[in-house]
Amino acid sequence: MEYKQIIMQSDDCDPDRPAHPGIFPAHEAGKSDHEPLELSVDFPVSVVLPAGGTGERTGLQTPKQFCSFLGRPLISYTVQAFERVSWIQNIVVVVAKENMALMTDIIQRFQHRKVRAVAGGSTRHRSIYNGVLALGGDGEEESPAADRPKVVIIHDAVRPFVEEDFLYKIAMAAKEQGAAGAIRPLVSTVIATTAEGYLDHSLERAKYRASEMPQGFTYDVIRQAYQRCTESDFEFGTECLHLALQYCGTNAKLIQGPPTLWKVTYKRDLAAAESIIKDTLSRSACVITGGSAQAVTLADALQKAVGALDMELEVVPDLMGGNAGSLLKEWNFIQVSVNRSSLSEVEALLRDLDAANRALLHPVVVIWVHLSCSDELSISGGAVQPAAIMELASAAKIKNILLYGIQLHQSKDTERWERSVLKVAEITSALIRERSPALVGQLLQA
Amino acid sequence: MEYKQIIMQSDDCDPDRPAHPGIFPAHEAGKSDHEPLELSVDFPVSVVLPAGGTGERTGLQTPKQFCSFLGRPLISYTVQAFERVSWIQNIVVVVAKENMALMTDIIQRFQHRKVRAVAGGSTRHRSIYNGVLALGGDGEEESPAADRPKVVIIHDAVRPFVEEDFLYKIAMAAKEQGAAGAIRPLVSTVIATTAEGYLDHSLERAKYRASEMPQGFTYDVIRQAYQRCTESDFEFGTECLHLALQYCGTNAKLIQGPPTLWKVTYKRDLAAAESIIKDTLSRSACVITGGSAQAVTLADALQKAVGALDMELEVVPDLMGGNAGSLLKEWNFIQVSVNRSSLSEVEALLRDLDAANRALLHPVVVIWVHLSCSDELSISGGAVQPAAIMELASAAKIKNILLYGIQLHQSKDTERWERSVLKVAEITSALIRERSPALVGQLLQA
Repeated sequence: MEYKQIIMQSDDCDPDRPAHPGIFPAHEAGKSDHEPLELSVDFPVSVVLPAGGTGERTGLQTPKQFCSFLGRPLISYTVQAFERVSWIQNIVVVVAKENMALMTDIIQRFQHRKVRAVAGGSTRHRSIYNGVLALGGDGEEESPAADRPKVVIIHDAVRPFVEEDFLYKIAMAAKEQGAAGAIRPLVSTVIATTAEGYLDHSLERAKYRASEMPQGFTYDVIRQAYQRCTESDFEFGTECLHLALQYCGTNAKLIQGPPTLWKVTYKRDLAAAESIIKDTLSRSACVITGGSAQAVTLADALQKAVGALDMELEVVPDLMGGNAGSLLKEWNFIQVSVNRSSLSEVEALLRDLDAANRALLHPVVVIWVHLSCSDELSISGGAVQPAAIMELASAAKIKNILLYGIQLHQSKDTERWERSVLKVAEITSALIRERSPALVGQLLQA
Repeated sequence: MEYKQIIMQSDDCDPDRPAHPGIFPAHEAGKSDHEPLELSVDFPVSVVLPAGGTGERTGLQTPKQFCSFLGRPLISYTVQAFERVSWIQNIVVVVAKENMALMTDIIQRFQHRKVRAVAGGSTRHRSIYNGVLALGGDGEEESPAADRPKVVIIHDAVRPFVEEDFLYKIAMAAKEQGAAGAIRPLVSTVIATTAEGYLDHSLERAKYRASEMPQGFTYDVIRQAYQRCTESDFEFGTECLHLALQYCGTNAKLIQGPPTLWKVTYKRDLAAAESIIKDTLSRSACVITGGSAQAVTLADALQKAVGALDMELEVVPDLMGGNAGSLLKEWNFIQVSVNRSSLSEVEALLRDLDAANRALLHPVVVIWVHLSCSDELSISGGAVQPAAIMELASAAKIKNILLYGIQLHQSKDTERWERSVLKVAEITSALIRERSPALVGQLLQA
């Protein structure tokens, strides 16, 4: 099997949306150092996302797919993971009837495109089948075969971290083999139990795998499998790959996926998912110096200090010209003001972020660092008014921008100055990582 | 099978240790509302904790069992889960030779009792066998049979949230049946693969279970199983229950455990574990009013506000007499000072916490809430000095106590006052939940 990798220009330029709506880690453990290649797929691919679950295993009232992470429901992250892939054409989210209005609202609020909500059936297989039929234009309006997708990818709403390169592997294998699915090694030994609750035997772990999502099928295979399967399959079955084998004779190609494909199942998984999202958003920040020499010195020192805290800083004098790109790709901004208690620079930054619709998908953090050089205090604009930054922060919070302040004094005592810089770095890093709405508007001391 | 449940007095009164060294949730989803009953076990039970893993699946350099959570390594949490159980006698932690010194240091630093570190073998089974032999006094010193445990519980170092009631079930079933193990329902379908990487068949999910830990064995069964098993079992085997079946003919009793038994395996699991620990520590706080009427009014209002944020507040005038118990069971303290910019009350609280060795196992949060009533400003001790609280916080941090400050003004405008109280509640809740060392010493505005 050969996978073509072609570098293409993205033709995906909706002016209302950020250029990079969000990147998620290819592997949990490390950063990805390279820009992903654009992958070329020359056949139509669409997606069915069953999202009808009731969330009983998390012990929460809200089904997992509708639980909020930094103010956005999980399903929206999953949808976004597919809609940013240029070669995916349509996404059908299958939800319980009582959640149709909620899903429609989510699609509008987060400006999702390519996405449609469809009402589900009483079981997982019935819901997926509804989604497949919706893609084929079956039902009320029959659509010509040419409009049907060649490949249908089925994924879970509660596996938000799927990456384009893995979707590509599944789509290509599905087209070639008729069916393909993600697998992972087993974490625990699997054992068979007797009816009385005793050990019967244990399986040899190496021979078995956990079947995960995404899975891919040619449209014809998945549709035929559902047309031919029994009521009992619809009622009790869990494995689409099994239906393809039993009713179409298609042996699915199995591809090992990354650990990030795991399914948000228990309450602890919500914390794990939030942590992955926060990690992704806190890898870098943009420091705006305004060009002042003292600010540049501070920014350079900060750059070294936060490097040790596993964050990268880009230092720019402003966000004009060639630096304007940072406005569209960064999630964190540090505005340094020297001897100016006025918040005008921060106000301008907030206006720019708002105009770029930057905080649509994730909260953006803005940290105002006020550096005062004591011997110049008399010419400065006076002391900072805590009330002013609190007021500005309250207004920004409504627009999903989290504003915090840090004050520090320049010191000629090197040791003292280094301690202050380290403190700014630690506070900055903690604020960016936590993204706590409760602490906005605070003026912290470094 | 009958489980005896007897309420006993704890005879576990080491004056150097907190009375309740830590409680963890029985179920992830909810709080446990009742005090756990003491369970009576009238035979000797000891524990083997294999902790030799290298942590390759988290993608981190430090093996998972030595990763720190709020300043304490995971293995210490697991050890604590066993040592707080009165009927468990000895705990053997089996570590790789190169980690013996580290483990010994952990045992000393966190004042663990009943615990011994033993060097492991080259595989998991060899390590467990070493641990079992160490319990039996085999090796250099042979101990009389009477000193050997009746039941050996084997658990993973990376499953820190095991509860006494479940250990009790395993120990009792192991004594009756010879072997017992925890199981969980399968989260994913398990499939068999062909040598070429295609689907062979999928298993019927209802017939199988994931085998988890803890497992329990009579000493004789586990020792015999290891004495009789082959080199190949030692080298490639993973399942102790299987060895008991194959070499002793013992069919293990399988008992379904709670979801919190899961194994910290991937990097995301570290975040999940930290979140469970933080949840447990942030369920309640103790508000100390000093008896002032304004402070009591504020405390009552706070009590209502944080209730909505899922935290319980206990309001006391001081920590004397009957209230002294709070000092030994709370992880969070809110000291309200009215019109007093002096930090003397907080200083006294910090001294008491230090004297009680309260922050040995978890960081303790102290929040100083400074309420100023503006019309009385002239008689008060003047404005709060940010430098004073920062200095106090730096000293407290070394002792694992995290001190933060919040200032608010009493207002006769009801709406404004309620907004301030809500803000104190939100900030308090966020500080307690996050336990951020970077923000200690800050004086926040409500």
